[in-house]
Amino acid sequence: MIKHLLVLCIFFILRNLHTAEARVRHYKWEVKYEYKSPDCFKKLVITINGKTPGPTIQAEEGDTIIVEVTNNLGTENLAIHWHGIRQIGTPWADGTEGVTQCPTLPGDTMKYQFVVDRPGTYLYHAHYGMQRGAGLYGLIRVTPRGPEPFVYDFDRSIILNDWYHQSTYEQAFGLASNPFVWVGEPQSLIINGKGRFNCSTISASSLSSTGGVCNTSNPDCSPYVLTVIPGKTYRLRIGSLTGLSALSFQIEGHNMTVVEADGNYVEPFVVKNLFIYSGETYSVLVKADQDPSRNYWITSNVVSRNRTTPAGLATFNYYPNHPKRSPPTSPPTPPAWDDAEPRVAQSLAIKAHHGYINKPPTTSDRVIVFLNTQNTINGIRRWSVNNVSFSLPHTPYLIALKQNLKNAFHSTPPPEGYDFINYDIFSPANNSNATSSNGLYRLKFDTTVDIILQNANTMNKNNSETHPWHLHGHDFWVLGYGEGKFDKNNDPKKYNLENPIMKNTVVVHPYGWTALRFRANNPGVWAFHCHIEAHFFMGMGVVFEEGIDRVGKLPSSILGCGQTKGVNRP
Amino acid sequence: MIKHLLVLCIFFILRNLHTAEARVRHYKWEVKYEYKSPDCFKKLVITINGKTPGPTIQAEEGDTIIVEVTNNLGTENLAIHWHGIRQIGTPWADGTEGVTQCPTLPGDTMKYQFVVDRPGTYLYHAHYGMQRGAGLYGLIRVTPRGPEPFVYDFDRSIILNDWYHQSTYEQAFGLASNPFVWVGEPQSLIINGKGRFNCSTISASSLSSTGGVCNTSNPDCSPYVLTVIPGKTYRLRIGSLTGLSALSFQIEGHNMTVVEADGNYVEPFVVKNLFIYSGETYSVLVKADQDPSRNYWITSNVVSRNRTTPAGLATFNYYPNHPKRSPPTSPPTPPAWDDAEPRVAQSLAIKAHHGYINKPPTTSDRVIVFLNTQNTINGIRRWSVNNVSFSLPHTPYLIALKQNLKNAFHSTPPPEGYDFINYDIFSPANNSNATSSNGLYRLKFDTTVDIILQNANTMNKNNSETHPWHLHGHDFWVLGYGEGKFDKNNDPKKYNLENPIMKNTVVVHPYGWTALRFRANNPGVWAFHCHIEAHFFMGMGVVFEEGIDRVGKLPSSILGCGQTKGVNRP
Repeated sequence: MIKHLLVLCIFFILRNLHTAEARVRHYKWEVKYEYKSPDCFKKLVITINGKTPGPTIQAEEGDTIIVEVTNNLGTENLAIHWHGIRQIGTPWADGTEGVTQCPTLPGDTMKYQFVVDRPGTYLYHAHYGMQRGAGLYGLIRVTPRGPEPFVYDFDRSIILNDWYHQSTYEQAFGLASNPFVWVGEPQSLIINGKGRFNCSTISASSLSSTGGVCNTSNPDCSPYVLTVIPGKTYRLRIGSLTGLSALSFQIEGHNMTVVEADGNYVEPFVVKNLFIYSGETYSVLVKADQDPSRNYWITSNVVSRNRTTPAGLATFNYYPNHPKRSPPTSPPTPPAWDDAEPRVAQSLAIKAHHGYINKPPTTSDRVIVFLNTQNTINGIRRWSVNNVSFSLPHTPYLIALKQNLKNAFHSTPPPEGYDFINYDIFSPANNSNATSSNGLYRLKFDTTVDIILQNANTMNKNNSETHPWHLHGHDFWVLGYGEGKFDKNNDPKKYNLENPIMKNTVVVHPYGWTALRFRANNPGVWAFHCHIEAHFFMGMGVVFEEGIDRVGKLPSSILGCGQTKGVNRP
Repeated sequence: MIKHLLVLCIFFILRNLHTAEARVRHYKWEVKYEYKSPDCFKKLVITINGKTPGPTIQAEEGDTIIVEVTNNLGTENLAIHWHGIRQIGTPWADGTEGVTQCPTLPGDTMKYQFVVDRPGTYLYHAHYGMQRGAGLYGLIRVTPRGPEPFVYDFDRSIILNDWYHQSTYEQAFGLASNPFVWVGEPQSLIINGKGRFNCSTISASSLSSTGGVCNTSNPDCSPYVLTVIPGKTYRLRIGSLTGLSALSFQIEGHNMTVVEADGNYVEPFVVKNLFIYSGETYSVLVKADQDPSRNYWITSNVVSRNRTTPAGLATFNYYPNHPKRSPPTSPPTPPAWDDAEPRVAQSLAIKAHHGYINKPPTTSDRVIVFLNTQNTINGIRRWSVNNVSFSLPHTPYLIALKQNLKNAFHSTPPPEGYDFINYDIFSPANNSNATSSNGLYRLKFDTTVDIILQNANTMNKNNSETHPWHLHGHDFWVLGYGEGKFDKNNDPKKYNLENPIMKNTVVVHPYGWTALRFRANNPGVWAFHCHIEAHFFMGMGVVFEEGIDRVGKLPSSILGCGQTKGVNRP
């Protein structure tokens, strides 16, 4: 009997040891359109298991994530990208339509399987056309096995977004039109999927004629409440998946200590406003150390564009105050939208945590400069990189390259730079010689690559925009930021090679440049693009290939379009 | 020299003889979304080569039509059905998603190739989800090699439609919602793609907030003008592709002589109003024999539903009056919407032309009765046939059956009838035992099949709707119409076996039945369904298989979805 108990005891110990090992986290998602009112205006949104934002994926470092996604979008295809997950050994699971996979057809189920190899805060979202804007997005939260360089009592997540009332079809085909129809400023800013549109600006008669309903008492748009216990410290994992907007995030009366950026530990620094760009994640620590007898505003505001969108509002609720009790104050005044200085200052403040420095190689094997410009091609407004506007091929690169399919994309590689001497980045340029291409950059495996993102004037006078660039499959070191034209002889001398932060998304400030370095050591094909949904759609992106010969056997689930239609028997 | 001329002469004669033979008509279509204002309200519509309705396919009897359709719908797939073309020998070209093909992916080009073996007036339209409602439709006009049993001076085409401002996504996902969101009555009726919405019902502020524009001076919605020369006779080919509406078509002050229905010659009869249901085509002869000093209204009006939609208006313009000169009168009063009698009378009046009678077999091998009811299944409002609500499989039947793919659809065949004794067709029924299925009816090849379409009360008291049923791959004989419950013992005795018209679409009147007969002699798999877009989407359809073993090799272009993903190397 005692022997039996001992066996049972050992069994349970082993079982517990086993659960401490990497686990498989299995999700089943149904993706479909539903009517929802995230900002009180009823419209068709894309939901996952009935929700937008979708469920948070919670895992531990080293776990395997399996997500079986069933497309019930009727007549529309689907692809989901796991933003910030490097997909080491699984480049086919990156979820980027046209780059790493064919889209998933209505009625089909796509199985994404990958390892979350590092702790941190990541995102997921649709990566097909402008589908992300319909509400298909969420958070991935990976906890570490060991200790972290900061302490907190509670862990909370906040996803920021901007929100449009037009469908993604209306947005996309407006952008592709001649005359050009810009998506415009968003109708609202939403925090954890909840915002507040001013319904009174729409007349009842017109709403009924288009089937719209705007109802501020709809629970869908009941503002998000973050309830805190006085004296406790909260880790807030904050991600932005805005279509367009650069944001300032603030908790009235509270400082925030930035401790993580895109899954990498940051040497802590304190902010009142956190500037956050589409595709970025941050963890901040907030101590509930203010007068606990009242609630406070949580706000998001548009910066870097002349804002017409009202602030996103949520409640920082001190327990036991009623969560719906309005703060007694007005929401805090946001930073001036056109003052880039504090935004640049925050960019410069983000360094790797001193205990977690991953030093970059001191030199690079290749330097590619990407000039970001607006252009007109065949009468259509486009964004270009070195005068080439990116278009996605119908046969995904990963499959075309791995299977040696001919003519799947343009064979001419796009340029490595621009006319540095003559190009005036401070004036609207003609850029009439821009072309459209789906050529890609092939990188020698295991080399070090520097990328200089060079901003410029748009087609409007005295205007240069803010672009958050996101790299798939890698983190990169952020070596430096500068104003004006990047000087390849002198600026590299100022690179931070001591403690640069690693990120997967980085901002290029107006009229400025940003310098990055990464190791081309993840076999696959990887998109690198502006994370503004409309900008990527309009051609603001490039694609890198590295080590394609080291990529394992492609799963048949990613095939089925372009030249891969019917290539493999499943 | 003379010899040379002779050779040249013979060459030209031969060449002309050759052109008198069947020709190949090759079309290249680009399908995409564009902003258009068919009824003055700007919305995203699907165009073919920039137009909605799409180009008319013009061919001669026996010609081969090749249409290469490129899908540029962004994230949405596509399928186009050639309505009324029997696709003899080419069942894979029928263009019915889920039945005869996988949908065509964005970026792909689908090549439809088929023979138009008979003269007549046919249609084409999207056959995928509710995509047709976005504007993808047009006319096929096949002229005969020989004489026709009537004469006219000019040949003109008119496509009628109703028009919604909601997107097809909004319509479809509303229908699939719980609570159910009905598409409602159309915002306007359009004639050759042009209508007139009352823009003043929408406020300017709300329009700008949703990006909408309503402008009655937009040329997109400039009313259609049919210019006629006094004394001449016009053949009008009239087709209806309404999403919902049964229509009455009228030319103020002019009689119309019906001479063709769905490609079959009709024993001529005269009407003032032509009742036309979605999926039907008619040719009528109109003589410009009225006072030529003025113009006249061409109108379409909703019948059989309590109309809230204003009349569709166009101008019957006597040359040389100005085409934009308004008729001096008000548009003619439409028939009472709820008076079914004249509609039934027209149905009964349509007989085969005495010179073109194709007699039906006097008996049938199988009789299937289809009871049409509304049901609730899992909280979702559906239409059902014999208590089975149809759903499309993800692997098209044609491929699954031809290639013996297992479990592609439900193997249980749906019922052949209903509880004739106990079912009360005049009351709202509970129908709580309805199920959803994609089972199909397998017909013995070359047998004669009778179909009785039995109407009933909807889920609302004292309401029975009008359903135009369309059969793919065949014409059927229309043997009879009746009121109330079909009596299988007595009603067949009243069948018209002498000169029944053949059609591909036939109406079932409220609380009535319609009896059809067809020969199951066209190898393939064929949909038979209510042509009301919302009704088919809600399950009002069935599928027939016949002679699958006689179907030739399937083209790889129709594969690529469900179990056929990656089955065949192209």
